[in-house]
Amino acid sequence: MIAASRMPKRGFTPAEFEQRLARAQQIMHRHELDALFVTAPPNIRYFTGFDSQFWESPTRPWFVVVPREGKPIAVIPEIGAPEMALTWVDDIRTWPAPVPEDDGLSLLRSALEGLPRRFGRVGAELGREMSLRMPVVDFLRLRDSMRLEIADGSPALWEIRMVKTAAEIEHIHFICTIASEAYEALPSQLSIGESEREATRKLRIDIARRGADSTPFMPAISGPGGVPQIVCGPHDRIPEEGDILFIDTGSTFDGYFCDFDRNYAIGRISSEAARAHEAMWLATEAGIGAAVPGATTDDVWRAMGKIIEEAGPIGNNVGRLGHGLGLQLTEPPSHRPGDGTVIVENMVLTIEPGMEYAPGKMIVHEENVAITKDGARLLTKRAPREMPVIR
Amino acid sequence: MIAASRMPKRGFTPAEFEQRLARAQQIMHRHELDALFVTAPPNIRYFTGFDSQFWESPTRPWFVVVPREGKPIAVIPEIGAPEMALTWVDDIRTWPAPVPEDDGLSLLRSALEGLPRRFGRVGAELGREMSLRMPVVDFLRLRDSMRLEIADGSPALWEIRMVKTAAEIEHIHFICTIASEAYEALPSQLSIGESEREATRKLRIDIARRGADSTPFMPAISGPGGVPQIVCGPHDRIPEEGDILFIDTGSTFDGYFCDFDRNYAIGRISSEAARAHEAMWLATEAGIGAAVPGATTDDVWRAMGKIIEEAGPIGNNVGRLGHGLGLQLTEPPSHRPGDGTVIVENMVLTIEPGMEYAPGKMIVHEENVAITKDGARLLTKRAPREMPVIR
Repeated sequence: MIAASRMPKRGFTPAEFEQRLARAQQIMHRHELDALFVTAPPNIRYFTGFDSQFWESPTRPWFVVVPREGKPIAVIPEIGAPEMALTWVDDIRTWPAPVPEDDGLSLLRSALEGLPRRFGRVGAELGREMSLRMPVVDFLRLRDSMRLEIADGSPALWEIRMVKTAAEIEHIHFICTIASEAYEALPSQLSIGESEREATRKLRIDIARRGADSTPFMPAISGPGGVPQIVCGPHDRIPEEGDILFIDTGSTFDGYFCDFDRNYAIGRISSEAARAHEAMWLATEAGIGAAVPGATTDDVWRAMGKIIEEAGPIGNNVGRLGHGLGLQLTEPPSHRPGDGTVIVENMVLTIEPGMEYAPGKMIVHEENVAITKDGARLLTKRAPREMPVIR
Repeated sequence: MIAASRMPKRGFTPAEFEQRLARAQQIMHRHELDALFVTAPPNIRYFTGFDSQFWESPTRPWFVVVPREGKPIAVIPEIGAPEMALTWVDDIRTWPAPVPEDDGLSLLRSALEGLPRRFGRVGAELGREMSLRMPVVDFLRLRDSMRLEIADGSPALWEIRMVKTAAEIEHIHFICTIASEAYEALPSQLSIGESEREATRKLRIDIARRGADSTPFMPAISGPGGVPQIVCGPHDRIPEEGDILFIDTGSTFDGYFCDFDRNYAIGRISSEAARAHEAMWLATEAGIGAAVPGATTDDVWRAMGKIIEEAGPIGNNVGRLGHGLGLQLTEPPSHRPGDGTVIVENMVLTIEPGMEYAPGKMIVHEENVAITKDGARLLTKRAPREMPVIR
């Protein structure tokens, strides 16, 4: 079942990490940062390759210092040292966490203060679409006892991570492909009379069988001709004739996410619902067409928005029409007015038009693309123009 | 396959939330807090019952204000409003997130400042084993513009969540039971020659089939007579004759975690490894026996530590011998010297002795218990005294 032949090699070469680091250090220099220190799993993984499901436990903080020159320094709980030693990182400093009195703080401080100083500033994950994975009281204690300024490093971090390497895109492409195939197979596995919860259980198991590592995100909801929301569920509700069953998934392979949805018709849907579905399919085409290097996220939003407007929406509570993805289910930028991000080669983006066409009846489409010099390349298998039917 | 007859009802009654709130408000009063505001999924879920896998997306902050009197107030992105309206929460305030310029901040501030004031302080998730799920720059902006003091609410929050309700314990018991059964069935599904990764894939699928909602945590590792660490993996390594295959899991049902491991012998293991395994089995017995109301976490640590010491360990990089669990894989307290938490009825704890008995050879056991007035009650099915064998 697992498409081993198409599965990318897990992990990344030291050359890849060197390339990531060199680019990051250029960006840090431009942001006038002597170092970044990161605490969030996707950031730690990006710079070191280190992976652990143990991050599910919030008890112990983990730190990685990325200096403006030289290789990353890991400042981590002892429990993680044997595995960190298998990565390309050489400088690993540990403490016997958990130690509430000093959970890595003095070790982190001396790592930061031991670096060559040029700008007198280090960047941390303080801003947009990030949160600091350590107690705030510890962060404030660190900040107030350091001789260096701690600045918001998130603009630099997002500039670094927003553009993917070829190997990252290959990873995302693989998880998009197997999720696409599982979505396609679902109508053959599911019958009218099975609940939303049963649908996701089957899809989740199928995606695992095809080679995904995990499925942290799989909301599902059903309703007559559309759904009232797209981020919660599944519930025990049994979809009925005329319903649309909406399923979205963020599944992962080797740390990288897909993020796209599919809609299924339960038996025959109304012509109104079919029209709204057709409009969202066309809006997706427009979004894919607009996602070219040099365009902005506002342009992509506008291209989709035009078609959505023509279809006569009464609302959309999502707040945007797509976003970046990679080591996180959602990353900057956002396709929304005012975002203003210039799209460049090797970004990976979702194209996600949606609308409420009647009260409580939303239809949302989503595909994932990588940006090439010639425009958007689909990483997902394009959703069929006609909604697949569960019988 | 799903043990529907034993599966607890999903969700909790309004009476349960009222009971949680009343107890929380007593604790808040004692901590001199006019309110708590929470951002982390387990805390939001604890007070509202609201669930969403969408929290996997870090883009939008979510807030719930728990006042010292009256019901919780949800201050959330519009995208979540239809589902929040299905909970027992009446007061739901939304904004069209993401709005980087003001992502809920002014709405949250006015919710907090509109509350009756007695102590002039509100508590936030600033301390131990918590992190704030919002940008730190936004938190600091809120703090500096509020007429109320923002204090560390984590001691109050942990006092609230550390003691479980009967319905919470039933949830944890169910996920412990199905994970126990899946662990028991694994030797019949796995053969020598299959990789660590294949072992977890099979176990993950089996746990899903038996009724788990998700498996955010399933590290696996194998090695001759023991393992070098217990929090990373699986890798593609194929366990060999004489190896021990270690698997741990935090799987969930309706938001509640189990957290326990099992060890498997690949063919015949050395007598040294068998002796270390026997010692950890006995240390687990001692830990279970020591976890009685009135004892401290230090006592539990000491009871296990005594048997571990007699077995001649050379180390243990875990930093403690067990902890609390519930809506998180790990929660306070910790069985470690100096933790000093007094164990009371209805705590749910892991009992997790381990040791390195030779270089790179760790053996770690783990069970989950609920504390009753008579002592610890096993929620997991006790691991067999003899290690199960994969052939």
